[in-house]
Amino acid sequence: MLYHVRMDVHPPVHMPAAEFDALKLAEREMAQALQRRGVWVHLWRIAGQYSNISVFDVGSHDELHDILSGLPLFPFMAVAVMPLARHPSALDVA
Amino acid sequence: MLYHVRMDVHPPVHMPAAEFDALKLAEREMAQALQRRGVWVHLWRIAGQYSNISVFDVGSHDELHDILSGLPLFPFMAVAVMPLARHPSALDVA
Amino acid sequence: MLYHVRMDVHPPVHMPAAEFDALKLAEREMAQALQRRGVWVHLWRIAGQYSNISVFDVGSHDELHDILSGLPLFPFMAVAVMPLARHPSALDVA
Amino acid sequence: MLYHVRMDVHPPVHMPAAEFDALKLAEREMAQALQRRGVWVHLWRIAGQYSNISVFDVGSHDELHDILSGLPLFPFMAVAVMPLARHPSALDVA
Amino acid sequence: MLYHVRMDVHPPVHMPAAEFDALKLAEREMAQALQRRGVWVHLWRIAGQYSNISVFDVGSHDELHDILSGLPLFPFMAVAVMPLARHPSALDVA
Amino acid sequence: MLYHVRMDVHPPVHMPAAEFDALKLAEREMAQALQRRGVWVHLWRIAGQYSNISVFDVGSHDELHDILSGLPLFPFMAVAVMPLARHPSALDVA
Amino acid sequence: MLYHVRMDVHPPVHMPAAEFDALKLAEREMAQALQRRGVWVHLWRIAGQYSNISVFDVGSHDELHDILSGLPLFPFMAVAVMPLARHPSALDVA
Amino acid sequence: MLYHVRMDVHPPVHMPAAEFDALKLAEREMAQALQRRGVWVHLWRIAGQYSNISVFDVGSHDELHDILSGLPLFPFMAVAVMPLARHPSALDVA
Amino acid sequence: MLYHVRMDVHPPVHMPAAEFDALKLAEREMAQALQRRGVWVHLWRIAGQYSNISVFDVGSHDELHDILSGLPLFPFMAVAVMPLARHPSALDVA
Amino acid sequence: MLYHVRMDVHPPVHMPAAEFDALKLAEREMAQALQRRGVWVHLWRIAGQYSNISVFDVGSHDELHDILSGLPLFPFMAVAVMPLARHPSALDVA
Repeated sequence: MLYHVRMDVHPPVHMPAAEFDALKLAEREMAQALQRRGVWVHLWRIAGQYSNISVFDVGSHDELHDILSGLPLFPFMAVAVMPLARHPSALDVA
Repeated sequence: MLYHVRMDVHPPVHMPAAEFDALKLAEREMAQALQRRGVWVHLWRIAGQYSNISVFDVGSHDELHDILSGLPLFPFMAVAVMPLARHPSALDVA
Repeated sequence: MLYHVRMDVHPPVHMPAAEFDALKLAEREMAQALQRRGVWVHLWRIAGQYSNISVFDVGSHDELHDILSGLPLFPFMAVAVMPLARHPSALDVA
Repeated sequence: MLYHVRMDVHPPVHMPAAEFDALKLAEREMAQALQRRGVWVHLWRIAGQYSNISVFDVGSHDELHDILSGLPLFPFMAVAVMPLARHPSALDVA
Repeated sequence: MLYHVRMDVHPPVHMPAAEFDALKLAEREMAQALQRRGVWVHLWRIAGQYSNISVFDVGSHDELHDILSGLPLFPFMAVAVMPLARHPSALDVA
Repeated sequence: MLYHVRMDVHPPVHMPAAEFDALKLAEREMAQALQRRGVWVHLWRIAGQYSNISVFDVGSHDELHDILSGLPLFPFMAVAVMPLARHPSALDVA
Repeated sequence: MLYHVRMDVHPPVHMPAAEFDALKLAEREMAQALQRRGVWVHLWRIAGQYSNISVFDVGSHDELHDILSGLPLFPFMAVAVMPLARHPSALDVA
Repeated sequence: MLYHVRMDVHPPVHMPAAEFDALKLAEREMAQALQRRGVWVHLWRIAGQYSNISVFDVGSHDELHDILSGLPLFPFMAVAVMPLARHPSALDVA
Repeated sequence: MLYHVRMDVHPPVHMPAAEFDALKLAEREMAQALQRRGVWVHLWRIAGQYSNISVFDVGSHDELHDILSGLPLFPFMAVAVMPLARHPSALDVA
Repeated sequence: MLYHVRMDVHPPVHMPAAEFDALKLAEREMAQALQRRGVWVHLWRIAGQYSNISVFDVGSHDELHDILSGLPLFPFMAVAVMPLARHPSALDVA
């Protein structure tokens, strides 16, 4: 099942840059691993913002929550989730 | 270039059902033609709402506006557009 | 899987009362049938408002959307959906 | 009487992790004790957020306020309360 | 128990004035009867608006909802309810 | 004249607990003195929130502002004021 | 006492133009009479909007409400009222 | 030309009180000088809030911005500006 | 002086198409005349919306209001105005 | 292609003034270089606010995002982007 997720990152004010950079690197590695597994199926940057629009394909709400809350940047993100259903006008190949 | 578009449909109160059904049919045909051309690359229903999340791939803002404002249901939709940039953690295949 | 759904009903201004009453009766019958099937697991009225808070237990986003969009009052409701995950502090019996 | 309560947790920025973990543990114990007493009747995680949707069954507004304001994480939560009435279409067993 | 209720009246556009006046008269009579019974304990006009701030003293959420949804102007009001608890600094006589 | 006042308290993050407790105690004493004088005529807690709904009876806007801005917790509160007029359906005894 | 009032006019959709023009003329006459009496002390147009910012000088909330709710355009206006107190940096002549 | 300006002051959390008092004193002196020059033509306190409603009479947007951004408290204020035009019902003397 | 203006058009529901087309034609002619005079210095369509972003160069708030309120589509537009000042980093030629 | 960008600057609370001044100087130099290259085509100050309205002319969303996220003040700005299309009533010279 597909979930539309928007993440807005609010970097911590007092964290040393090196520490935050390490979190970003770990986030990137996890994001890429999840993309390779076919779980994080889309990942786009909203132009001009430290935000992304993502689509996840997972089997349950619990699995989605475990993934999102386990992201290294989760404590510094506002997250909004919308479940996506099939659109009656969507082509099968879309 | 990719654009994230949300469309919320507000059916007209006073239009006869047959007339609105004809508009929906024309909308569906146009949506599918644009999907076949690779312009309307994603089309999902937001679960529980008469709304969709779409991604368009077009060459310019003008082309996007011409497509959206030419949709049969455009007069009955609230439309929100966000330009999408490449995310530094996105895999090339994504 | 559980979904938290809020429905706010906005009765149509121009519909004859008898016609809207028939819709409400059909809505009630469908709501009770879905409760008996274990799909519509909670249904509460928000005190002082023509609104309800509901919890649905269905197998997929598509199934949820089909149910909600098929409700007789759907054209007259604002609907908001949130996927619910298990809370780590919830007892198994809850 | 039933109350619908949404809690959004905003962890304190400057508190040592061990201190906040102790608060979370105490919160969990209190939440489970209240569930066993039949007071905190539902507790769900909103997928993707450090938030929960809860339903409490207490005898008065004062009792509800005492419980909520006594939660260990109360100083770090935004709380929204809605009184729930019986829905005319709800089955008795619901 | 006390409930804080705000009601914003939106008169129907197409109803004949005499019909709406009759509803207002019935509303007034019901409001005064409920005041005499000690149920509608405060009723104030928000200066400059067709709105009121009220406090009700009833035994349950269900009783509150029955009263509010039975008001003649209920179909033309936006209603917001907040349960009120005792304030620790309030004097007993307040 | 009556004023409807909502106060939402946001405790300071960095103040020592003993210092804030002293402010709360001073606030309580001032609130009770104003209640005894018939100036702070109602004081309720919004269930589940560190907020109150109050009604003040003072002779002028200036007097109201002097009282509110002189409260010990004023620097830590968001305050919203609405002037209350007599409601045409209110009984004289209300 | 001074009150800051913002009025946003929403002309009725179905009223014949001549009828609405008559209301506007009556509104103008009442506004000018109240200005001559020193009650409506300031009246400005918000540039680009069918809205005004006004300041009234009246003796009580009840008097303000009677004036505002008696304006011919009151049924077609959204009105927001803020009580104004003396500013400690204001000169006496201001 | 007249500009309607609302200023909401948010005192800095970490600044020593004496330092902020000095800023307030400087602000007051500048406000009074601008009132004497006929530039800051109205200055009112919003009752119950650390906010003011002001009207400025200056020759250009640039002059307004220079004045506002030069206020000692400007770094601690949220400022909202609306250009005011003459109202067709305003008396010349108003 | 420059003003930033956003206009969102809400076509009237019940007006015959030919009548609204005539208003749009008149609007277009007026917009182009004002552009030729150097008054309406920028006019852009917000992609995907029946809205524009405009910049006007006029001598006073009154002149701006006269122009905007005289547009044929003014009764069907939501208009938001912001005065623009010179930016300290703007080049003279910009 | 043109993009409408609004930037609201929120200076960091704890950064030494000299360090922030250096960032502002670097921002200014980059803004002027981009203006000279014809990329940052308009740059206005919103009167009374530490905010600007800008128009960029770039070849793609990616190019826009690279420019904006590379600004020295980007970590301290809220940024909102709207793609601008040609308006059918705009003159060619505009």
